[in-house]
Parts: sequence; C-alpha cells; structure tokens
Amino acid sequence: MTEIQNKFPGKDVTPEDLASKFPLVAKRDPQHFSRFTVAGVEFGGRDIPIMAGPNMVESRELIVDIAKNVKQRGARFLRGGAFKPLTFPYRSAKYNETREQGIEWLGEAKRATGLPVITEVMEERYLPLVCEVADILQIGSRNMQNYPFLTACAKTGKPLMLKRHYGASLRDWLGAAEYLLVEGNEKVMLCERGITTAHTHRATSRFLLDLQVIPAAKELTHLPVVSDPSHATFWAPWVTPMALASVAAGADGLMIEVHPTPNEAAVDPLQPLDYAQFGDLVRRVHLVRDATRSAS
Amino acid sequence: MTEIQNKFPGKDVTPEDLASKFPLVAKRDPQHFSRFTVAGVEFGGRDIPIMAGPNMVESRELIVDIAKNVKQRGARFLRGGAFKPLTFPYRSAKYNETREQGIEWLGEAKRATGLPVITEVMEERYLPLVCEVADILQIGSRNMQNYPFLTACAKTGKPLMLKRHYGASLRDWLGAAEYLLVEGNEKVMLCERGITTAHTHRATSRFLLDLQVIPAAKELTHLPVVSDPSHATFWAPWVTPMALASVAAGADGLMIEVHPTPNEAAVDPLQPLDYAQFGDLVRRVHLVRDATRSAS
Amino acid sequence: MTEIQNKFPGKDVTPEDLASKFPLVAKRDPQHFSRFTVAGVEFGGRDIPIMAGPNMVESRELIVDIAKNVKQRGARFLRGGAFKPLTFPYRSAKYNETREQGIEWLGEAKRATGLPVITEVMEERYLPLVCEVADILQIGSRNMQNYPFLTACAKTGKPLMLKRHYGASLRDWLGAAEYLLVEGNEKVMLCERGITTAHTHRATSRFLLDLQVIPAAKELTHLPVVSDPSHATFWAPWVTPMALASVAAGADGLMIEVHPTPNEAAVDPLQPLDYAQFGDLVRRVHLVRDATRSAS
Amino acid sequence: MTEIQNKFPGKDVTPEDLASKFPLVAKRDPQHFSRFTVAGVEFGGRDIPIMAGPNMVESRELIVDIAKNVKQRGARFLRGGAFKPLTFPYRSAKYNETREQGIEWLGEAKRATGLPVITEVMEERYLPLVCEVADILQIGSRNMQNYPFLTACAKTGKPLMLKRHYGASLRDWLGAAEYLLVEGNEKVMLCERGITTAHTHRATSRFLLDLQVIPAAKELTHLPVVSDPSHATFWAPWVTPMALASVAAGADGLMIEVHPTPNEAAVDPLQPLDYAQFGDLVRRVHLVRDATRSAS
Repeated sequence: MTEIQNKFPGKDVTPEDLASKFPLVAKRDPQHFSRFTVAGVEFGGRDIPIMAGPNMVESRELIVDIAKNVKQRGARFLRGGAFKPLTFPYRSAKYNETREQGIEWLGEAKRATGLPVITEVMEERYLPLVCEVADILQIGSRNMQNYPFLTACAKTGKPLMLKRHYGASLRDWLGAAEYLLVEGNEKVMLCERGITTAHTHRATSRFLLDLQVIPAAKELTHLPVVSDPSHATFWAPWVTPMALASVAAGADGLMIEVHPTPNEAAVDPLQPLDYAQFGDLVRRVHLVRDATRSAS
Repeated sequence: MTEIQNKFPGKDVTPEDLASKFPLVAKRDPQHFSRFTVAGVEFGGRDIPIMAGPNMVESRELIVDIAKNVKQRGARFLRGGAFKPLTFPYRSAKYNETREQGIEWLGEAKRATGLPVITEVMEERYLPLVCEVADILQIGSRNMQNYPFLTACAKTGKPLMLKRHYGASLRDWLGAAEYLLVEGNEKVMLCERGITTAHTHRATSRFLLDLQVIPAAKELTHLPVVSDPSHATFWAPWVTPMALASVAAGADGLMIEVHPTPNEAAVDPLQPLDYAQFGDLVRRVHLVRDATRSAS
Repeated sequence: MTEIQNKFPGKDVTPEDLASKFPLVAKRDPQHFSRFTVAGVEFGGRDIPIMAGPNMVESRELIVDIAKNVKQRGARFLRGGAFKPLTFPYRSAKYNETREQGIEWLGEAKRATGLPVITEVMEERYLPLVCEVADILQIGSRNMQNYPFLTACAKTGKPLMLKRHYGASLRDWLGAAEYLLVEGNEKVMLCERGITTAHTHRATSRFLLDLQVIPAAKELTHLPVVSDPSHATFWAPWVTPMALASVAAGADGLMIEVHPTPNEAAVDPLQPLDYAQFGDLVRRVHLVRDATRSAS
Repeated sequence: MTEIQNKFPGKDVTPEDLASKFPLVAKRDPQHFSRFTVAGVEFGGRDIPIMAGPNMVESRELIVDIAKNVKQRGARFLRGGAFKPLTFPYRSAKYNETREQGIEWLGEAKRATGLPVITEVMEERYLPLVCEVADILQIGSRNMQNYPFLTACAKTGKPLMLKRHYGASLRDWLGAAEYLLVEGNEKVMLCERGITTAHTHRATSRFLLDLQVIPAAKELTHLPVVSDPSHATFWAPWVTPMALASVAAGADGLMIEVHPTPNEAAVDPLQPLDYAQFGDLVRRVHLVRDATRSAS
C-alpha cells in the first residue's frame, strides 16, 4: 500500500508536481509573484483592481449606464456576459443571451467610458469576435477543463482570467493554467468563484466562496488570484463582507456584479449590488487594502 | 425571505423544473422508462449491458486482444479512449493520447470481434471521424456543461452517453441531458462516474461513486442510467462490489475498465480489472441482475 | 514539503495507522472477518440480519404491533429510539422522546415477540437502564467522537453498533471503534448512515448513503459493517434500492425504519416503509444475498 | 412533491425556524447584536479579542511562558487544552492529555499574567474542576451535538464558546446554541473552526475555514462569532491571511494557536505560530479591524 501511495498522486499537489506538472505556473522562489498590466491596469501589484458590471449585457442603455456608474465609483474594468452557459436549453425574451449584439454593446460602453472590458467566451469560433472588444478573456468555470478550448484561448495572446470549476481541486486548476502558459501567454490570472460543499447557508445559494485557496494558491503559483464573491455567495448582503475578506486573504482583484435595479436583473437577481452598495464596497475595499498591503 | 426562497431555485429539482426546465428528460408517468437498441444491444430493458475495455487505446495489439477477451467473458460493448482530457499539458511516449490512430485501432477491434464501440469525443471538429467508428459517443464529465458541444454531439444523431460532472447536481445533469433531447436525439443515456466529497477512503482515490443518484434519477427521468465504478473508485478491489451495488440500485448498464496487465496500463493503473477479474465480475453481475430484475 | 507530508497524517488511512492507531480494529490478514452471535443472531456470517422498527418508540401499542409485524416479515432485531438526539430543544406532545417509558415499552415488545432489541443510548447515566432491555447498544452518529462515552459503553460488555458520524472519515471512524475494542469488548459492528455532501438529490434529504465505504472498510477492518439506508436517504422510495445495493456492496446487516402509517410517524415521516413495503424489501434482500454470497 | 417539500425542512434555515426552532438565538431585528463582557473583555463590540495559546497545556513552564508572551503581544485571553478529544485511544509520554494537572497549570499561568482563560471541557463530571479556572468554557466541535452535555455546560452559568462541528449545517449549529440559551445562559459565542470539503489544498490539512458562514450567521443570530484559523487550516503560513480575512468578514474574535517552538509541539506541530509571527498577526489584525470597523 505504501509504495502505491507514493507512486500515484492523490487529490493534493505534491512537491514533484511543481516541477513536472506545472513548471510554468509554479513559483521559482517564495517571493516570485507575477505583475502585469492590461489596458493600463496593473494586476499582481499593490492595487486591487475591481471589475464590475451586470451578469448579463441586457441592453445598450443598461450596459452604458452601468459602465458610467461603476467607473465613477472606482471600478477599473467593466464586466458583463454576452455569451453565458445556461443550465437549461430554453430561453425567454428576458432570460436569454445577447451574444453578438451584447459584445457590440460592451464595445459601446467601453468607448463611452474608457473602461477596459472583461467578458466570457465559450466557443473557439467566437474568439475573433470577442477579442475585438475584450481586454481580458474570461474562461468560465464550466470550461476550465475544456483543454482544447484553453489552448485556443491562450493562442489569441489576449490576457486571460481562468475561473476555477466549482468541483476542481487546486491541483486541477493549476494544471489548467499550465495549458495557458505553455502557449507562451504570460498574462494569466486565476479566479476563485465558489465551490460546492455540503452547506452553503441559504437554500438559494449553491456555492461557498473558498478563501483558503487564496493563500494556498499563492504558496505555489506566481499568478495573480482574483475573487468573485457575487457568484459564489449568490446573495447580495454577503458580497461586501466576502469581498473584504478576499482582499484580507490576499486576493489581487475582485469581480463584482452590479445592476441599477437588482430585482429586475435578467438572471440571478439575488446577487448584484446596486450603485450605492457598490460605491460603499469600493470605499471599504480600499481601506482593507491599505491596512493589509501597507502592513505586509 | 420566504417569498424569495419560493421564487428562486436552489440546489435540488423542484416540481416546476420537471415541466419547464427539462420536459423531454422528465418522466411522463411513474412507469415511463425509455428502452432503445444500439447495434443490437438493448438499453433500459431487463439486460444490463456491460461496456468494457482499457482506459486508453494504447496500441492495435492491445485493443484487439482486450476486445476479444472482454467479448468472450460477456461484454456487449468495447470501450476505450483515443481522445482524453488530461489534467496537465505534458505528454510522454507512454502517457499520451493516440487520437486519430486510436480511433482507427478501435475500428479494427470492432471489425475483428463484432463488438460495438463507445468512445469519448472532446471536440466538435473530431465528430465526423469519431462517428465513423463509434456506436455510442461518450460525452465526458469535463464536457457535461460545454453546452455548444452538447448540441453538436446531439445533432450527429448518434446514441449518446452523458457522464455526470463530478461536481454537478442531479438538476444540472438533467439540464445538460435536455440539451441533447431538444435536438431530437432520443438515444441518450446518463452515466454516474463518481463525485467529489470530503472523504474517498484512499489517498489515491479522488471520487466517491454516488449510488443514491440512481434511484433519485430514475424517479425523475425515463433515461437509462449507467454506472462507471472504475473511474469512480480508482481502485480495482472496490470495482466489483460497487458494480454489483450499482445493479442492485437499479443501474441499466456498467462501464468497466479492463487491461490484461493493469500494472502496465498507460494511465490510472490502479483501477483496471484483469481478464479473470472481469470474467468473475460479469458472472456475479448476472446473478444480481437475475435476483433483482426477476424480483421487481 | 515532502518530509512534512510523510511525517504527518492526512485525511486517509496510512499503512502505519493499521499497526499503531487501530491495531485491534485492523485485519490480521485479508481473510480476517469477525463473526459473532447476539441473542442467537449471527453477524459477520452469510446471513444479513435485518433490524427493523420505528424511528421513535411512540407508544406501547405501536411498538408491539411493529415488533410482531416486522418479525413475521423476516426482521431478526427490533429497533426503536426512546432516547434521541433532537436538533432543537423544544418538544411537543407528539414530537418528543419517550425515554424511560420507551425503554419499558421496548422490553414489552421484546417479551411479546422474542425479538432481540437494539436502541440508542445517549448518556452514561442511562447505561444501566438501557442495558436491561437492549441486546445491542447503538452509539449514534452524533456521539461517535464522544470518547469518554465510547469507553463507558464498551465497559458494559454489551454488543455495540457504532454509527459513523456524517462528517467523519473512515480513519476517524476506525479510531472510534478502537476505543471500544481496547476495553476488551469484541462484539462491535460499524454502521454507515449517510454523509454530508454537496448534493443529496432532494431538498428534504440531508445525507448521501456512502456505499464505497463498505468495501473500503472491509479492506482494513474485520468488524461487520451494517448499512442504514432509511436515515441516509430520508425518502422511503429510495430505501429498498439502497438496501439491495448495500447488500451487494458487502454489508453484513441492515437497519430499516418501519411504521404502519408512515405519514403519521412522530418524526421523519418521509423515510419509514410500511409493512407491505418492508415485506417486499426482505424478500428482495434475500434474493440479492443469495446471489452475492453464493457467488463469492 | 411540492407539498411535501414545503412541509418538511431541508438543509437550510427557513423563516419558520427563526421563531419556532431557535427563538432565543434569532435576532429580534437586523441591528440586534449581543455584547457582553467576560473578565473585563468585551465580545460583540468594536474590539476583536484574540485568544491565544498552545494546543495542549504541555507543562507548567510552557504555559506560563506562552501566557506571558501572548499577553505582551496583545492577546486578551489564554487558550490551551488540558482535556482533548484524541482520535485514537493510545497515548505516549509526549502525546497525551495533561487533564487535572493541565487545568492546575492553566490556573498558575492565569495568576502569573492576569490573562483570563478559555479551555475545553469534555465531560460533565469535570465541569466543577474546569470552572474553577476557566473564564469561558469551550465546547468542542465533537461535542456540539452532545445535547445533554450542552445543557450541563449551560447550567454552570459560565460564559460559553460553542465550536461548530465540521460537518454541521448553520441550522444544526444554531439549534445547538439554542440548547444553551434556553437554560438562561446569555454569554454564548459561536466559533467557526473549519469544515470538511472535497478539497483542503494540502494533504495534511483536513478542513477548510468557512468564512461565508460568518455573514450568514450574523444575518440570523445576535450571538458573537469567533474564528479559529489555526485548527481550520492546520498550516501556520495560512493562519495570518485567514485571520485577517475572518476579521474582514465580520468575526468578533479569534482563536490562535501559539507555541514558542512549533516543531516541538506535542500535537499538530504544523499549525502554531511562534511568538514573532503572533505579534505580527496581532498588529495586522488591529489594522484590519480599524479599517473595517471604522468603515461600517
């Protein structure tokens, strides 16, 4: 039994993995942390860029209005989904992807505000279209282990944000990131967005934000780690405390869902913050950042 | 709080979901169970077809030898991977996909034995190639939520086996199956292959075979449900008891990994059965089938 | 990192644990399985004793009626709770423990039918009282790690059934069993009763029956392993398939909740079988037992 | 199916639970938060008391030295275990509880430094002894559902800290707390100490600190919530980031394991901080406290 256990990997990262499984993702020394700039915004440094916007790019008016309002309150990136993995195949007028149209509207919001854009891409064939507007390509949780797609995304040369699948180990996640780095793409960041666990504390919440993975990841990899408390908690009142906790745990950035009238959001209306709540979050995030980054 | 909880779905299937989210997957009445035939083998009936073969189609000789031996011992389908999702991007001479070559060898094993073939396909562009040889397309756990790919697979008209993602709820799984049925493809089966849990009982085992999902699924859907105890347990000594338990719980089929010399398998050498163990498994599965199917 | 990982145990059993942490619980050789008899009923042998009865010993009439009916349909032990761990401190006329009274009624049912009795004990001070009637003491999930209590139970010399805590690893469970064996008590059996996992497949079900732990436990320990599908699934329609699956996986006994009118049960009314359903379960369990035990 | 689901509780707290299952634990209004003082230290207020000390009270010298050093660096309470639940029954000279002796030494450290003491009690019969020295009784994770023991602890009138079982839901935890309040004991605090999940990110770590439970608990209950990142992470390098994150998420206090020479600690040597690391933690916790509490 001993020999077998030593020979085959289990669920956690082994020291051998660092050199043989993800040598590009692994830190070269304890103080090795990547810093890079996307559209003038630095990731991996002292700043904690906040990416904010709606779950879904519902309309031109909405996305432009949100872009202006989150920028004014301190967001550095505009987020919003035009292509979205939906659990069931049926759509309605309200509950639907806006796809090519949504990407175009994101472009308009970007031009109107100067905010750079991060948005999800789900298929190789849409990469050229999405790359026209996106400054960072978001690879969603459900595609984390779609390895041919990871390779295709990396080859665009665009900065990438790789969301952790909600059932994936840190080992699996770093393995997926290695697929990106091996293509020569060096602007890669990780994003924790909640895991499945026995208890999530509300009947409507499906995930638990895993903050322990932040120090765990930063012990092994030099890549910046972003936190998405909105999707993780699925409940607006918990977003700000979990955003502050993410920063205190060492997160290098935040993804925050914002909608002017959360109750009317096309999808997941329990999780967005409104403008005032978002403004309060930014102010408090900056205080925690100053307390923890100056102290380290 | 009450209103919100009633309005938004949680982690489990609600009665409303049956009609609105997966009407084609849902049973029309309690005795509604689909039966269909693939290459002369019936799924969903009294028989419990066993699909057997290696994890990876390593060589022509190996796959032909395995095909002959599992057929002789009672397998009704040959399984084997030519395209495989690998957690890390690095390959070696031994640890590598055989891809187009492997599909060709699967075809030779099929012609040599008459056994129909099930194999995984990972990318839309390989669908035509894989469809030439495969009688059932296997959609892997990691692609369960790759919705555009589900649609592409369904449109081939080929029978499909949809593996449950190891972090997916029954609700998510049935939603993914609906993406297949909505394209008019009626030969769809589900496959449970282990979930992530706090405890898997061996350091080298990553999953726990979820047998409770079998009666749970069969309460809601008419689709046949297959069990894969080899990948789930990752440990050969547990495969036979968990295969027998699967059949007793109501499974409509089994996926079993078989290799003539398990220790020399290119990947996951702890999990395959050898020929003698597989023959014993088939004999005992038939006894449990006769005990449970005649009794129901 | 390597040295530290080798020096400190993780979540799973290591080969060293077998000799140093639970030498009495560990098998001496692969074919080492304990067999012992309690009140004329053998555990660990070819038979699969079924222990049946209500969740709570609600009244004299009820428990005597259930005892007669489950005996007639093949139960070998009467189960029923007089002392029960209740999640909240408030009681009502219906939802309440019957305590000393319940133990007395269990004794009457035992005398009326000759069925031996298994019942839970929760406090050291009630051991003398419960031992007067019980043939097996049940140590509940919530007391699995109440080590001083384990020692007190073992010292009574009574046969013991140790339920696995729903969050406990196999390693923790075997450690708790060692506390029993080290006191010289050799009639100890383990009972799997469901674990907490991300998905249980119904909003009202809190646990998932872990059948993988049965072959895993029997690989390491000689103690008999019983399965309790009623508490695990919390849903009567799943009890029979999961009972059959338990036996096929290697379980040495079953705990089944039975009530003449399940909808009127004082606690957990979704999980008991009625008499006819229980009779059908016994008949089918015997068929699976004959198929699997003769085959091994 | 709908009616049944509405009638029976599931895994999460329902609005009805607040009034019927734990009315004393539930908040009366959104701004209802208990504040109380123990030995001059306020819990539930703006301050975040830090309770620090070794896992085990190994010797008189050790505990007095640690008490002096953690006090000097900002700890407000001395923690240390004399009675400890150990997973296996075997003891060695080093790996052993110090029991009555340990309680005496805790008393000496208290007299030497003036630091109040929190320590675990595991059995009703030791309550008088432990109450002589302890200012707060710690009810361990493994006793969270030992309801008769909860009642006995509450009846002492001593302030209590109730650790969450690592498999318990928030609903179960609040139910256990209600057992304490119903006895008239109003000085009760909760302590999150890590849960079992599929992934803990190190082979030697068994738990994941659940910070999402902090805003979730504070939404429902007025009781103070403390965080124990040492036991949760089982890895010293993660303790400080997770302590800071706890405070940012809203924790009302911290339990931190400290040892002058962690490598020589009698139990769990991977998790304690040394004196310098602890001093740094206190300084940084105060910065985060000032940033988050002034901002709220």
